[in-house]
Amino acid sequence: MMNRRKFFKNGALATVGVGLLGACNEVDQISKTTESSSKKAKNIIFLVSDGMSQGTLTMADSLKQRMYGKASVWLDLYRNNKVNRALMDMASASSIVTDSAAASSSWGGGHRIPNGGINVGRGGVEHKPIWQKFLNAGKKAGIVTTVPITHATPAGFCVNSESRNDQDGIAEKYLDLGLSVMLGGGQDYFDANFREDGKDMYQAFANNGYTVTTERDEMLASANNKILGVFDKSGLAYTLDRNNEKEIEKQTPSLAEMTQKAIDVMKNSPEGFVLQVEGGKVDWAAHANDAGALIYDQMAFDDAVEVAMKFAEADEETLVIITTDHGNANPGIMYGKDVNENFDRLQSFKHSNDWILQEITKNDSVEQVRERIEYANNYGISKAQAQSILDYYKGLEKPEEGVYNYKKLPFKLLSEIQQEYHSVGWISTNHSGDFVELAMYGPHSNQLNSFMRNTDLHNFMLKATEVEDFATY
Amino acid sequence: MMNRRKFFKNGALATVGVGLLGACNEVDQISKTTESSSKKAKNIIFLVSDGMSQGTLTMADSLKQRMYGKASVWLDLYRNNKVNRALMDMASASSIVTDSAAASSSWGGGHRIPNGGINVGRGGVEHKPIWQKFLNAGKKAGIVTTVPITHATPAGFCVNSESRNDQDGIAEKYLDLGLSVMLGGGQDYFDANFREDGKDMYQAFANNGYTVTTERDEMLASANNKILGVFDKSGLAYTLDRNNEKEIEKQTPSLAEMTQKAIDVMKNSPEGFVLQVEGGKVDWAAHANDAGALIYDQMAFDDAVEVAMKFAEADEETLVIITTDHGNANPGIMYGKDVNENFDRLQSFKHSNDWILQEITKNDSVEQVRERIEYANNYGISKAQAQSILDYYKGLEKPEEGVYNYKKLPFKLLSEIQQEYHSVGWISTNHSGDFVELAMYGPHSNQLNSFMRNTDLHNFMLKATEVEDFATY
Repeated sequence: MMNRRKFFKNGALATVGVGLLGACNEVDQISKTTESSSKKAKNIIFLVSDGMSQGTLTMADSLKQRMYGKASVWLDLYRNNKVNRALMDMASASSIVTDSAAASSSWGGGHRIPNGGINVGRGGVEHKPIWQKFLNAGKKAGIVTTVPITHATPAGFCVNSESRNDQDGIAEKYLDLGLSVMLGGGQDYFDANFREDGKDMYQAFANNGYTVTTERDEMLASANNKILGVFDKSGLAYTLDRNNEKEIEKQTPSLAEMTQKAIDVMKNSPEGFVLQVEGGKVDWAAHANDAGALIYDQMAFDDAVEVAMKFAEADEETLVIITTDHGNANPGIMYGKDVNENFDRLQSFKHSNDWILQEITKNDSVEQVRERIEYANNYGISKAQAQSILDYYKGLEKPEEGVYNYKKLPFKLLSEIQQEYHSVGWISTNHSGDFVELAMYGPHSNQLNSFMRNTDLHNFMLKATEVEDFATY
Repeated sequence: MMNRRKFFKNGALATVGVGLLGACNEVDQISKTTESSSKKAKNIIFLVSDGMSQGTLTMADSLKQRMYGKASVWLDLYRNNKVNRALMDMASASSIVTDSAAASSSWGGGHRIPNGGINVGRGGVEHKPIWQKFLNAGKKAGIVTTVPITHATPAGFCVNSESRNDQDGIAEKYLDLGLSVMLGGGQDYFDANFREDGKDMYQAFANNGYTVTTERDEMLASANNKILGVFDKSGLAYTLDRNNEKEIEKQTPSLAEMTQKAIDVMKNSPEGFVLQVEGGKVDWAAHANDAGALIYDQMAFDDAVEVAMKFAEADEETLVIITTDHGNANPGIMYGKDVNENFDRLQSFKHSNDWILQEITKNDSVEQVRERIEYANNYGISKAQAQSILDYYKGLEKPEEGVYNYKKLPFKLLSEIQQEYHSVGWISTNHSGDFVELAMYGPHSNQLNSFMRNTDLHNFMLKATEVEDFATY
């Protein structure tokens, strides 16, 4: 059979005749193995819903349909056959269940490393981060996230660091990289008042020509071609809380707004741009087994996908990659008599479990606890359930642990109570080893195999853009 | 742009030139929307791993790789780009979380019906089952499963029944359908000694020209073109138990052996054949939160996929459909320090939790319980854990409920103990609403959209085979 790329590169139309028909039939049988026409990608938008299990994708699509009569943008790309898709194996060098640092490093550096580091392999070997490769090739580069800009997923595309926890150090490493856009959370690592070493990173970035802001309005108004926007001490507020508190909405941009801003800042770059967009609080919500926070943040991620796709469909030179770095807690809608009614309750949720639990104290009454949950979830829990929550605050129960549960709040306890009225269940409060969903749109996307090893995505992006600074093995 | 089907149906080669190149480019951009060449499917093999969550597919592939250095056949079809794949929405008329009866009916009858029935919609409307349509068109038809032949998934392709529970009645309905092959479990519904009405269905099928057997050897040796093989009272033994008990292995065929037999019986049919193959005990293992039983039965399903694919690749006229009817319990490998070592323990598991728990009695000692589990799982649980199991048998704990847990055994309790040594977690002991995995190989498979509504698969099969007895809406 004829090799299609060879044909399109070398074949003259007059010489092919039947040979071309053969090529078409080959395409027809195994459509996804056809080689691309020679069009290269000028830009890449890489969207990661962090810690998104299959059930998270399903539930966001289902709730969106049931609330608005409109499915998710992500799955409508499937319904309209606009993308190629694959399963991806995200294992790290140390574990079949990755953390976000090793996961992002597998894409960013092209190598599997042990959990916990950023593009640093065993024996301290450093792997060159892919956004640096693209910057060297003259492209603009940006990162946008709902968690700290210095967090594992953006960092994995940008820097090397022995530990993902050194977010102070990662902020300093960003300073001279030449990124055009950094938008997200993490004032703790930029603000002199919060950093351990007292350095004023805001001033340092301003000295390097960045517009530095902590306000949504300023971000939206900025006309500078370099911007650092840091809108919260740590992660940004959950979308569910933002949707229902005017003050948060006014101060904090949505992921879609930050994505639009990043595109606007970089879209006229002559050599193109690369942008990573992370729905980081999807992962945090899964760690907290918080169905409301999870699904609304996944829907906010979906809005960012919409922004990216609108640009890419008009632009025609942008490869859009939509994926997640690992499952988390494998949530799912659970079989039962009242499951439809229960799942639909999420439509009237007003606040995250974080919002509910941060303000409860051991001195509250049972009625106060019930009122707060009824306000947030539009559902009245029983007195006994409210008492069990109060007992926790009184120190009568074993304190819960949890990845982002610094204050040891009873997320699991509340989630177990909620199951009876929203019908969403969880396997744990941490990552899972499931192979993950990967979709691509635009130039080179037809080169996607139906199954991918995480590290292969590194050279895939370089090939797509013909920036041939490949990782070697 | 040119419509490719029109081109291939009507276009003469000499007339197309540049138009054809245009068509090829269209294929190149959105490969999966290309229309098929006119080749039709003569045969269909429809393989269902019942109740397979994404994590089940992942874990079977991972364990197979770690045990044998060889990945699953199913996911190797992805790695080698041999199939088209989609996500499928399996909701029923009554619930976003389907049962197997409504799920199979959605494919078999082309309509969503409420959970619990077999191709009977609201108001008693009956939808014609697809295997009957194919039989009318002159094809041979068969069903193969590891649960009763009269169970929901095979029944949904064959008959109408107000209730999936009327398995006695479903066995009678099979009698005059003209199926060539029925292999699986369910002596309770065929044997005069077990049926409530005392009817001898074996004799009735023998009178209709079937070879009737309850023995693997007889099945393998049969040269008849009609066969009914019923190898257990209810579901067949779990693969994990079969692998480690010579007696079961000798008496009970594997799913792959039954699949091979069914193909051999029907493959010379002039008008072709249709075959449904169900890995039914994958679902039962998920209901029991039994990681060992689940993964080994999923691997046995994978062996059946291999048999189907070998036939189809040589035959070239067979559409192979590989899917599941719903998630169940959303199992996943859970993040943790010792997760690799823990997950690898499943390699030395010898028996299912059903095997472990059926034989424990309240009169056993703590040491006897520990010995039994150590024999089955190659792991020594603590005395306190063994005591908690004994306490359950002594009636000191609330009895567990569960879909196939007729004897109220402590499956959940044992599974929670096992989590610390195999690192597999579960959201519940029942189905989930996750969109499910669907893959296709062979003629017409390139017509698969990336997202499918369950009911669309009905007309898809009819179109593929050009048996135009479509369901109407």
